[in-house]
Amino acid sequence: MTTPTSLPNAAAIREAHARIKNYIHRTPVLTSRTLNELTGASVYLKAENLQKIGAFKARGAHNAVFSLSGTEAARGVVTHSSGNHAAALALAASNRGIPAYIVMPSNAAKTKVASVRRLGAEITFCEPTLAARETTAAAVRQRTGAAFVHPYDDDRVIAGQGTAVLELLEDVPDLQAVVVPVGGGGLLSGTALYAKETRPGIRVYAAEPLMADDASRSFQARRLIPQTAPRTIADGLLTSMSARTFAVMRDHVDDVATVDEAAIVEAMRFVWEILKTIVEPSAAVAVAALLRRKLPVDGQRVGVILSGGNVDLDRLPWERPA
Amino acid sequence: MTTPTSLPNAAAIREAHARIKNYIHRTPVLTSRTLNELTGASVYLKAENLQKIGAFKARGAHNAVFSLSGTEAARGVVTHSSGNHAAALALAASNRGIPAYIVMPSNAAKTKVASVRRLGAEITFCEPTLAARETTAAAVRQRTGAAFVHPYDDDRVIAGQGTAVLELLEDVPDLQAVVVPVGGGGLLSGTALYAKETRPGIRVYAAEPLMADDASRSFQARRLIPQTAPRTIADGLLTSMSARTFAVMRDHVDDVATVDEAAIVEAMRFVWEILKTIVEPSAAVAVAALLRRKLPVDGQRVGVILSGGNVDLDRLPWERPA
Repeated sequence: MTTPTSLPNAAAIREAHARIKNYIHRTPVLTSRTLNELTGASVYLKAENLQKIGAFKARGAHNAVFSLSGTEAARGVVTHSSGNHAAALALAASNRGIPAYIVMPSNAAKTKVASVRRLGAEITFCEPTLAARETTAAAVRQRTGAAFVHPYDDDRVIAGQGTAVLELLEDVPDLQAVVVPVGGGGLLSGTALYAKETRPGIRVYAAEPLMADDASRSFQARRLIPQTAPRTIADGLLTSMSARTFAVMRDHVDDVATVDEAAIVEAMRFVWEILKTIVEPSAAVAVAALLRRKLPVDGQRVGVILSGGNVDLDRLPWERPA
Repeated sequence: MTTPTSLPNAAAIREAHARIKNYIHRTPVLTSRTLNELTGASVYLKAENLQKIGAFKARGAHNAVFSLSGTEAARGVVTHSSGNHAAALALAASNRGIPAYIVMPSNAAKTKVASVRRLGAEITFCEPTLAARETTAAAVRQRTGAAFVHPYDDDRVIAGQGTAVLELLEDVPDLQAVVVPVGGGGLLSGTALYAKETRPGIRVYAAEPLMADDASRSFQARRLIPQTAPRTIADGLLTSMSARTFAVMRDHVDDVATVDEAAIVEAMRFVWEILKTIVEPSAAVAVAALLRRKLPVDGQRVGVILSGGNVDLDRLPWERPA
């Protein structure tokens, strides 16, 4: 099977980068001798936790918003999200000077609601079910004519997410492998499409919580198996892949590693202590796959996309001593 | 009064940078729109929390160790420290392939002891008093012939610490002010000497905990007033300045701001949440001075040296909700 031809190629990802680069941070690449010793590889961490709104999602949202025609843009953008995509879309809309309508579940974290509101978006609350979110978003579209921007099942978003590995490969041109966490698959898709076209020999790996392993099971089965009842601390990786992102994974990704919850927490704390940078559990998943030696990268130069750093500092997943 | 002519000038600091640059990280400069809004300035944070061993101290220690002659170096280096300087000197000695002898108080944190030991240093424990530390270090010197490297009262160390602002001014050449935390005054001295010589109009400010305000009182009195009974969470800033670092402050620093403990914790949490980077309380002191508008930098481009990021994640200074 081949990948649908509509998918963004490296040229589209380069165009996306030119389109968004004035609105995003060029995030640094972090290294650590200790991390290299423990993983047996030379690891280059692309610090998207330091990105605007604290996650790579700023890239895809900006590319989607700045790809709209003037007429489309004037009516604004809409999405449903309780997480980083909501803040990313609100920021991108604010930067273009257009309205953002965000549908959030009534149980969304107060800090997330506050940050979306601070970015100037109009929030509509709904029941915390996918059906209610979709119905409510459709009603907002009906009322406003706003353009819907899906968090990952969207070529413009995928192209935007691919700009992270574009920058990483500019900074470290001779990477032999890249590891990214997979939830809905937007970051994985953009990464794989860009890396495989521009560096034919490179390996692209996904990392996923064992407790939310739809990507791994889908990859093994060669068919899309939706996520059911995920229970992981990596709250950015709870979503199912789409047909589009599954097809990219199937055709362009070399393997999917899974890690258990203890490995995720251990990797998260390791990154905080050794790298001094705050990553959320979802970002730690990729580091956990390396620390637990789940991937065949011994002695290689390996890039990792640290996807985000939005955590509640009052609820850290390690216990205080008595 | 004039500054003693032996003090490192900009040329010496450039030499130090050439000497150490292959052993240290070129740390990134972080920015945040939110921080700019809250401070009323354009703030550029030099992330020395991401430096080797998690603190700028790696710079001074490497410059001291790599300034030694071959004969001197062969006998090793010795210091007494329970903090970042111990790890910095151990790393620098390891990089030169020479012995490091570290005198640590018997009550030093286990994690700090472990990290110094992991770096290959020989540790000698002593009673937790300054007198015991100095006597023990003198005995180690006697036995080994190792060169003593003071954490801040040393021109080679001061020159090394000055390389942080050298890099910052390369990245942001038109800074109008720089703010650094002051403890013993090594970082402040290196920063002021380099910045004032190379950018005559720049303002250099120190920031200090109100609960350990020897620098502020000394600055006001124009004479060195030693620290007595400091009680601050900023454990890197407990030490007294020396005659040497006081003279630099008196002659080259524009003002010293003090901040209370609540402001330090608030700034630390702010940096963690907004910048996603782990700073220790001592580093947060400089940010607190800006957040609390203690310095006349309104509308200016201001550099801040985030001095370090070594914290115990099990003992964070904010409470969990019940």
